[in-house]
Amino acid sequence: MKELNRLSAVDAAKKLAARGISAEQYLRSCLDRIDEREQDVRAFAFLNREAAIKRAKELDSGAVLGPLHGLTLGIKDVFETHDMPTQAGSKAFEGHKTTNDAGCIAYARKMGAIMLGKTVTAELATFPPNETRNPLNLEHTPGGSSSGSAAAVADYMVSAATGSQQFGSLIRPAGYCGVVAYKPTYNLIPKRGVWGNSDSCDTLGIIARDVPDAAYVTSAMIEYPGLRAWLEYADKVPAPKVGLCGSYEWDKCDAHMKAAFEAARNTLSAAGANVTEIVLPEPFRGMAEAQRIVSNFEMARAFADIAIRFGPMLRKALYDRTVAGLKITGEEYQRRQRLGRQCRQMFSDVLKDCDVLLTPAATGEAPKTLDTTGDAIMNGVWSFLHTPCVTVNGGFGPNGMPLALQVVGRLDDDARTLACAHWVHGRLGR
Amino acid sequence: MKELNRLSAVDAAKKLAARGISAEQYLRSCLDRIDEREQDVRAFAFLNREAAIKRAKELDSGAVLGPLHGLTLGIKDVFETHDMPTQAGSKAFEGHKTTNDAGCIAYARKMGAIMLGKTVTAELATFPPNETRNPLNLEHTPGGSSSGSAAAVADYMVSAATGSQQFGSLIRPAGYCGVVAYKPTYNLIPKRGVWGNSDSCDTLGIIARDVPDAAYVTSAMIEYPGLRAWLEYADKVPAPKVGLCGSYEWDKCDAHMKAAFEAARNTLSAAGANVTEIVLPEPFRGMAEAQRIVSNFEMARAFADIAIRFGPMLRKALYDRTVAGLKITGEEYQRRQRLGRQCRQMFSDVLKDCDVLLTPAATGEAPKTLDTTGDAIMNGVWSFLHTPCVTVNGGFGPNGMPLALQVVGRLDDDARTLACAHWVHGRLGR
Repeated sequence: MKELNRLSAVDAAKKLAARGISAEQYLRSCLDRIDEREQDVRAFAFLNREAAIKRAKELDSGAVLGPLHGLTLGIKDVFETHDMPTQAGSKAFEGHKTTNDAGCIAYARKMGAIMLGKTVTAELATFPPNETRNPLNLEHTPGGSSSGSAAAVADYMVSAATGSQQFGSLIRPAGYCGVVAYKPTYNLIPKRGVWGNSDSCDTLGIIARDVPDAAYVTSAMIEYPGLRAWLEYADKVPAPKVGLCGSYEWDKCDAHMKAAFEAARNTLSAAGANVTEIVLPEPFRGMAEAQRIVSNFEMARAFADIAIRFGPMLRKALYDRTVAGLKITGEEYQRRQRLGRQCRQMFSDVLKDCDVLLTPAATGEAPKTLDTTGDAIMNGVWSFLHTPCVTVNGGFGPNGMPLALQVVGRLDDDARTLACAHWVHGRLGR
Repeated sequence: MKELNRLSAVDAAKKLAARGISAEQYLRSCLDRIDEREQDVRAFAFLNREAAIKRAKELDSGAVLGPLHGLTLGIKDVFETHDMPTQAGSKAFEGHKTTNDAGCIAYARKMGAIMLGKTVTAELATFPPNETRNPLNLEHTPGGSSSGSAAAVADYMVSAATGSQQFGSLIRPAGYCGVVAYKPTYNLIPKRGVWGNSDSCDTLGIIARDVPDAAYVTSAMIEYPGLRAWLEYADKVPAPKVGLCGSYEWDKCDAHMKAAFEAARNTLSAAGANVTEIVLPEPFRGMAEAQRIVSNFEMARAFADIAIRFGPMLRKALYDRTVAGLKITGEEYQRRQRLGRQCRQMFSDVLKDCDVLLTPAATGEAPKTLDTTGDAIMNGVWSFLHTPCVTVNGGFGPNGMPLALQVVGRLDDDARTLACAHWVHGRLGR
């Protein structure tokens, strides 16, 4: 039998529900992969091996619990769990335990998921990298902050994994590792029990190996069946109308990313998509800076306890950013919040008759270093805009690493965004 | 000397900073009041007496730490604290301890505040009441869910207290107890370390005995000096242009509230305010229901761990509402989110040339019962709209209890909203 851990989450779920494979078989294929690769990839901050095996046996001897029955999930280490530590990639939280599950984690368990472990996050879900490496090439960063989630999914260790994005912490690592992140519309996945950095930007999401998997897992996790209804006719999703949007951050992209983006235009046109050019209105020019200011204002205040009581345990660059954020004035912050609202208002019209936008997900391929998680400049605007975003494949760079693009949808138009992203991802050569 | 605990927070802070009174003196006047009244009022879920005294002595022997030096704060029992349990008014969290302070609590400590205790919240910051009584008349509800915060402030036990609002949990209890709540623009006070119910509605705020106190404490707690800049010329705030707005929930108000609202029009006009009538556009008619649907959809998912693992420990009405919320479809939820966005877009224009709106803060005075915390119907729209709101005095009802109104400002226009609320509150006979 093909290695079970390489099944798509959707296929695995079908087989698990039909008892064609057992939860324990499936889990053991994931554990075998972890045993083989984890010493190199370092995706997990905590592996819950024994509890997962016990849970799999229970699932095999009981009723099918729900759509996630027997699937294995990696949980970014800023989501609280009642049975595993939550350490957030920070010395300040070494061995830290919590008593409750984040709401979305509890619901995923109820739907049958096996929580395989906590995945490595960059420090406090910000930028200083931790130990994870890119499974496609161990000398490259996996991106961050959802580093371990992206790496574990890309390396076939779990069915899918949770993540969170303040700047570019879902879309970018998924893109660097050649997998898919789905960042839903802001607030769609509840943040209860997940450690927040910036209330106005933080959004939870799912990393998976393909768009249907991401839609399927998210849908079950928040009891929103409509989010996966399109999977019934996934092969018949009509060609979308796609707006090509270089964005005001275009100049930050390297030549390889720019070429990949141009190539996508031709590929999608040839495949039957109606492709047009979208230029964002003038106010969007200020959105990247606005996101940075709003985010850093909020983060500095949210981190007050950590910075004050555990300051020396933070890496200096993060501590310094926190202190600097306190100097951003409230007036400056509120002015940028108003810009954010204005652009959110405009965005649906910006799309004109397009279903979605296509824009680069990163400035290029994953940098060949473990000292940084790369640049989030292509993501911040969409985090602050609160739009659904989905990573799609855009080809490969000079080091053979993925060049990721992202499909951006209208606010609260998640099901359509996912279906369109699936179409685009398939045509660009998933 | 006048009882120190009756000083305004602003005056107390001045005297404390000038060492005209000691932090220990001030604290002991609060503790004396608590000793005298707490057995009747029952505002505290946990009183941190010894730690507070120790802290006061330290403040007296050290430098002035910041604007909150020596002020006493009550903390709603859903804000995490490293030195006190966080029990959320729920049997599921009896004796529950956390290791960190919420970000805003940590910053308030850094600014010199003394954390006097955790204040009683309705169960999990929702609707089933807990033990607190209205200090103005012990047979009446103090409102909720920030019951203990409102009662402790109204009864002169603390300088001010923190709270949170999903439906009407700040503005209504403050109104019922004859004090002031300031609900800032959504996300202005960071939610890190505060237990969330509905990410799209939850907003943190401050309850105090007067508008300047609320502005002063909030401003220091989030390092936003501009929020209190107007206090320098608080007596010279020009007469605002006020839009009278009965809202689409007007019919839920009793005759006394309606009369108080009409009287306010005349009083404000006579005092020199430019008063006009504002009719909310048609889409706002659906906002109260939209708030309920969005809120209950999100809460049901956020509460998954509690409902699944501790369901029998929840009061039945809350458990039932949680289960019912799971049946709200994602499509329904996202449709209402779109309405919310649409109304937020329109709101600034709705105000025309008005500085703020004035609208009822509750349907009437605090009900004479301890079995309910009253009706939040006059608050939900503004929670979902994300606007700053400030409770103001509107007179008294047939039982001699306050009839509260609220001043509503534009999004991210908090300083002006507070200054206008101060003017209105003063003219209506604070």
